[in-house]
Amino acid sequence: MSEVPETVALAALRLHARQSRLIDEGDAEGWAATFTADGVFDSPSYPEPARGGAALTAFARAFHDSCVATRTHLRHVVTNVDVEASGRDGEVVAHAYLQIVATPEGQDSRLVRLTTLTDRLVRHGDAWLVAHRLVRRDDVAPEPVTTTPDDRGAPA
Amino acid sequence: MSEVPETVALAALRLHARQSRLIDEGDAEGWAATFTADGVFDSPSYPEPARGGAALTAFARAFHDSCVATRTHLRHVVTNVDVEASGRDGEVVAHAYLQIVATPEGQDSRLVRLTTLTDRLVRHGDAWLVAHRLVRRDDVAPEPVTTTPDDRGAPA
Amino acid sequence: MSEVPETVALAALRLHARQSRLIDEGDAEGWAATFTADGVFDSPSYPEPARGGAALTAFARAFHDSCVATRTHLRHVVTNVDVEASGRDGEVVAHAYLQIVATPEGQDSRLVRLTTLTDRLVRHGDAWLVAHRLVRRDDVAPEPVTTTPDDRGAPA
Repeated sequence: MSEVPETVALAALRLHARQSRLIDEGDAEGWAATFTADGVFDSPSYPEPARGGAALTAFARAFHDSCVATRTHLRHVVTNVDVEASGRDGEVVAHAYLQIVATPEGQDSRLVRLTTLTDRLVRHGDAWLVAHRLVRRDDVAPEPVTTTPDDRGAPA
Repeated sequence: MSEVPETVALAALRLHARQSRLIDEGDAEGWAATFTADGVFDSPSYPEPARGGAALTAFARAFHDSCVATRTHLRHVVTNVDVEASGRDGEVVAHAYLQIVATPEGQDSRLVRLTTLTDRLVRHGDAWLVAHRLVRRDDVAPEPVTTTPDDRGAPA
Repeated sequence: MSEVPETVALAALRLHARQSRLIDEGDAEGWAATFTADGVFDSPSYPEPARGGAALTAFARAFHDSCVATRTHLRHVVTNVDVEASGRDGEVVAHAYLQIVATPEGQDSRLVRLTTLTDRLVRHGDAWLVAHRLVRRDDVAPEPVTTTPDDRGAPA
């Protein structure tokens, strides 16, 4: 059903699972290291994209610090990982659904938000790294055409 | 733990992820093409099963049109894909959990329903296609015996 | 991104999917058989760990009996399976997120709880079995040091 080899599809699955665990457990450097050196995390939930290792690490650290401060576990629940060829060698596009689930201490868990991920993954030795992640929120209406969505760096 | 080869188990995983993305993003023909030419989608949420490409395409189009009309994203979140041998060559049974998550524009996401899928998948060249999908809803009590569930085409 | 072979990562994925289906559908013996003969299931949701086949079977039977008695489907939704080397031959550590979703008959489904799994899996012939499962609940604050968490048998 796809020209992407099985080994690459499985690598993407594992990458997403590991990334969530790293950021959710507070390993900010580990999470940042799953991106390329100039990798981009672009989410409408934050004022601007994080670019490069230092910014990505700071982003992940701020995420976890906020969880600790509010005594709330936030989990990145990833499902529906679907990998497509990008047309470029050593590169694929991985789509996934990402649910944010919050559990304040002593309270029930609740679904906060469903977003979708569109990742450009690149091969780096034996591993695959995120070169660009675009997060879309289902609760946000599509942007008007005048904002030129192409400028946001979506994978070609 | 199973006699089904790993390549087939992974193919089923990928098929489920892709199907959800296709129907959720409005690619009705693409979704229908993940079924065999005479494939069946049988869900208690709809008055009768959809059979064959034209009916499946119409079903998927109606699903997405309804989302657009109500300004609500509906996502098919698939997890727990477990593939078993069916005893027939070139055919397996894939079980999965399917959660429907709704996000009306500007509102929080919410879990609508958890259903289970029981799919009969058949090999079609290099790909696997859905020959029969039976959806069961956890909120519906088992049918009384007089409705002869076997007639509903559940995989043997 | 990991020294664990792909075949093992996929086996862990399949094991988790199958386990959920077995316990959720009431196959208590089948669920218990996914653990080693002296396997341990240790969850803060229950007064003490279940150890060995008879105790595990009884645990799974009680779980399902309770579902039947309350006319409620409970589903173990597993995502984010991430497998790491344990440093011992024929053994890995599998991490996963586990959401419990409840659907009382005639009512909406709801997320009850998000927990994390830390499993020590051991190779048993062609299969992988759970030697030790530690469940952690996000709604429970970390235990004070005086309870010596190491005694709870967490994977090394």
